Amino acid sequence: MAQHQENCFCGQVDRYNGITVDSKTEPCDVALFPERLEASLNQWAKDKRRTIWFRVDLNQSYWIPELTKRGFQFHHAKQEQATLYRWLPEVEMCNVPPYAHTNLGVGAVVLNEETKEILVVRERHSIASTHWKLPGGYVEPGEDMTTAVEREVLEETGVIAKFKCMLAFRHAHRYAFGCSDIYTISCLIPQTFDIVKCDREISECKWMKLDEFISHPHVHDNNRLLASKVMEYLEHGMGITVTQAIHPINKKPISVYSVADTKDS
Amino acid sequence: MAQHQENCFCGQVDRYNGITVDSKTEPCDVALFPERLEASLNQWAKDKRRTIWFRVDLNQSYWIPELTKRGFQFHHAKQEQATLYRWLPEVEMCNVPPYAHTNLGVGAVVLNEETKEILVVRERHSIASTHWKLPGGYVEPGEDMTTAVEREVLEETGVIAKFKCMLAFRHAHRYAFGCSDIYTISCLIPQTFDIVKCDREISECKWMKLDEFISHPHVHDNNRLLASKVMEYLEHGMGITVTQAIHPINKKPISVYSVADTKDS
Repeated sequence: MAQHQENCFCGQVDRYNGITVDSKTEPCDVALFPERLEASLNQWAKDKRRTIWFRVDLNQSYWIPELTKRGFQFHHAKQEQATLYRWLPEVEMCNVPPYAHTNLGVGAVVLNEETKEILVVRERHSIASTHWKLPGGYVEPGEDMTTAVEREVLEETGVIAKFKCMLAFRHAHRYAFGCSDIYTISCLIPQTFDIVKCDREISECKWMKLDEFISHPHVHDNNRLLASKVMEYLEHGMGITVTQAIHPINKKPISVYSVADTKDS
Repeated sequence: MAQHQENCFCGQVDRYNGITVDSKTEPCDVALFPERLEASLNQWAKDKRRTIWFRVDLNQSYWIPELTKRGFQFHHAKQEQATLYRWLPEVEMCNVPPYAHTNLGVGAVVLNEETKEILVVRERHSIASTHWKLPGGYVEPGEDMTTAVEREVLEETGVIAKFKCMLAFRHAHRYAFGCSDIYTISCLIPQTFDIVKCDREISECKWMKLDEFISHPHVHDNNRLLASKVMEYLEHGMGITVTQAIHPINKKPISVYSVADTKDS
């Protein structure tokens, strides 16, 4: 904890000599906030602090206009909390990294290896609702891609399928909310074959021959290109497989994806 | 544009029957804002609108406490602008997707194919500043991964190197700002060999034999595991290469990464 001065926010010191004030641990009434903020900023300037962070809860959001008046900007926000920051050093360039700016999606090539058929869907609310697509969707916060793709297939089609390997991914910019977007395509092996589609999202779902999908007039070039990667995979058998490991410093589980021969797996 | 009622925000209708109000195009004084917001919300409820979005600029951030009092939450925020939303339908579940929650980083195996040496660095400000690492860093908003990895190598080491293929990536959760993190490892071919390191970030930089790096006591298991993928790559020659294409609907450029033989490239 920083040394606490009378009428100043205490905050939490970080290893970059920054300070974080959280409105949940140091709530402050609207009438007292401006004076307390001024006193704190003066103290932090004297202490040569670098980045000052304020985590502001929804119910103390009257802090925000006072912070922005004093040079704070948004760093990120979600649901109940906004995080604002101000870089104090005057001679040094601000080195605060931006917040996450990449959306992560998954698509599934659920491949019946005997019949060479794959699961395809038509989306109910898409701009291109007549087009056949691969089942898939967004990865949830904190979710593994293997879990996400198995979940999306089950939710949309009712088919239980098991991740085998990733085949390809595309990276593009200026998608939803101005973010970049990574959409991965994985090969899954179906464990069941009966379709029970999700009526809310999906208007049609069926098994289709892979080469019919690739030449189908109602498949976008984008998906056609990705499907052609499936054909290449079926020839060389090399996919992007996953290994689970533990990070040596922070001890968190990590998934390592790399190119490997999948023919024997 | 939505039908404009006296004393209501006009906003922009989207294809999901939502409304977006932008404080830049419809500024409103602090004294008038609460009444105008109430009138608008009543109108939007009558019109059966779904998600109501407010984009609030820093200099009108006094809107935020009024919005949060009336059930709005944060969706995201950056620099000069916060985006808040409220889902109006009472019987249907909110289907607003979350904002981006994945950080994207790049690491480089700059491989001298003749000597089997790679470029390694020691970071000045890292927790583990005695450890040898691969050069790399975060991908900038809107930046391609191939550009990012070439830029980081040049910035940190002064070596000009050209992206050949991606070899592996790791995905893990609860990293910076609570986001998930994807860190990719790519093979680059050096075009120059003289090192001019970045003194601000890097304390040491040198060429090291790949097998020395893999067995070095001051290399984390994490990087050792990734480096072992380089050895596998040198055997099978199959990497994740990139193809540029154009998205068929939105006409934006896309990069498609997939597994291919790199021996002849």
